[in-house]
Amino acid sequence: MKLITFARMGKVGFGVVKENGIIDLTGRIHNDVSSIKDLLKLDLIEKAEEFVAEKRPEISISEITHLPVIPDPEKIFCIGLNYQEHKEETGRPDVENPTIFTRFANSQTGHLQPLLKPNFSDRFDYEGELAITIGKGGRYIPEDKAMEHIAGYSCYNDGSIRDWQRHTSQFTPGKNFPATGPFGPYLVTEDEIGDYKKLPIETRLNGKVMQKANLSDLIFPIPKLINYISSFTTLAVGDVIVTGTPGGVGDRRDPPIYMKPGDVVEVDIGKVGILMNFITED
Amino acid sequence: MKLITFARMGKVGFGVVKENGIIDLTGRIHNDVSSIKDLLKLDLIEKAEEFVAEKRPEISISEITHLPVIPDPEKIFCIGLNYQEHKEETGRPDVENPTIFTRFANSQTGHLQPLLKPNFSDRFDYEGELAITIGKGGRYIPEDKAMEHIAGYSCYNDGSIRDWQRHTSQFTPGKNFPATGPFGPYLVTEDEIGDYKKLPIETRLNGKVMQKANLSDLIFPIPKLINYISSFTTLAVGDVIVTGTPGGVGDRRDPPIYMKPGDVVEVDIGKVGILMNFITED
Repeated sequence: MKLITFARMGKVGFGVVKENGIIDLTGRIHNDVSSIKDLLKLDLIEKAEEFVAEKRPEISISEITHLPVIPDPEKIFCIGLNYQEHKEETGRPDVENPTIFTRFANSQTGHLQPLLKPNFSDRFDYEGELAITIGKGGRYIPEDKAMEHIAGYSCYNDGSIRDWQRHTSQFTPGKNFPATGPFGPYLVTEDEIGDYKKLPIETRLNGKVMQKANLSDLIFPIPKLINYISSFTTLAVGDVIVTGTPGGVGDRRDPPIYMKPGDVVEVDIGKVGILMNFITED
Repeated sequence: MKLITFARMGKVGFGVVKENGIIDLTGRIHNDVSSIKDLLKLDLIEKAEEFVAEKRPEISISEITHLPVIPDPEKIFCIGLNYQEHKEETGRPDVENPTIFTRFANSQTGHLQPLLKPNFSDRFDYEGELAITIGKGGRYIPEDKAMEHIAGYSCYNDGSIRDWQRHTSQFTPGKNFPATGPFGPYLVTEDEIGDYKKLPIETRLNGKVMQKANLSDLIFPIPKLINYISSFTTLAVGDVIVTGTPGGVGDRRDPPIYMKPGDVVEVDIGKVGILMNFITED
């Protein structure tokens, strides 16, 4: 299933994408379920599948505004330096554990929405990444059980204001500007993906390929990320892990390439979908 | 006023501390107000003041369990290296902007609650700090208006698992273990504090003074912190800024001193109160 979060006629809802349309699930699987996170919390994915099996799409995708797949995760973990080529281009040393920084939910946006370049920086960079959403929480999750905790996969663009990211040793400011973290278009449930390591990932800027890799290239694979993160915090349903970006970021090119108002950026991940956004100035 | 968040007979509530007792405000100022954050959101601090002026305390402080002052901030910003003596003891270079890392709300705990030392690390360190809670949100807040955005002041202990903090360049793991961030005992409203720069701050471990400074020592004073943070994100009501720790952390002593099960740690800040916790092993 492809689960989608959207706004339509002034209301926020969620549903399933089917045959280029949407079946609205808001409040229809269960009275208390008005979001993907609610659906996951009550473990009603199978019930949603049964519900949509008999239904035809009711809403055209063109009628909705895309919102972040999970608009309000309790936690968003971003993994830095998780592809060899990107680690090398940044000149950072080898480390034995994943590099983890965080995003606040209010920095997220949806598919086809504008990304905001602040008017006081010209160093707005893309980072195409695979995001996973936690479907079953827990602490001390062993690697061999980790995949059972994933609800599904999405595209994410970890948009970065590079000068603000480097103000100090900690990345927080450059990774948290409003409308810099698009997350979508949908959450593709785990059964539609199979082996995530077979997924290709590509980031395009104005149609030109800027990053290209395969999910098998992750230095710390997804089970290791889940195991590590769950050793220092309790993962909750709806938490998001953004798994890192391949080599080819604009900031490390010679000359550097940054995103400007009017540019179009896409993150394209095999069966997961294509996340497209355009840049405007804040 | 001293606002307090507590649990009592299986319910979470909030109130005002008066004459060693508590006046419960849960649902009594307004139907929709069941937390300090709600009270701030609806701008009802003055109404709460009027309400408690006529009342006598109803609950003994010994009857309640202390919870974090704001148990569910949308964002918690921790400032690193904001006192000269601490910056020097860590060997970090001068920077022109505040160093900012983040805590998730689920790492917080309350006054008199146990702090959990993970059983796989012996490097659990204290960091006594002054925390401010945002009472009025905003973006691009100028320094000369910044103080108007503060609802009040509290003590915070930014408990750190030092080996996990240094796994990579980013501090996130070592700053987010469960029950390592006590926040309390209360939120003291701005009118009771006056000039925060006159506040002394002291951290004691088993009664011995480990950190001692004055809030006038902050490298980046509070108006600068609010101005800087609000340039990269929108501050929301209930957001928390933990303003940094003085020199004297256990990890930089020779020999180092870490917190062990059975230890008692206190953060004592002038008119703001004394936050006391004991250590247990997770």
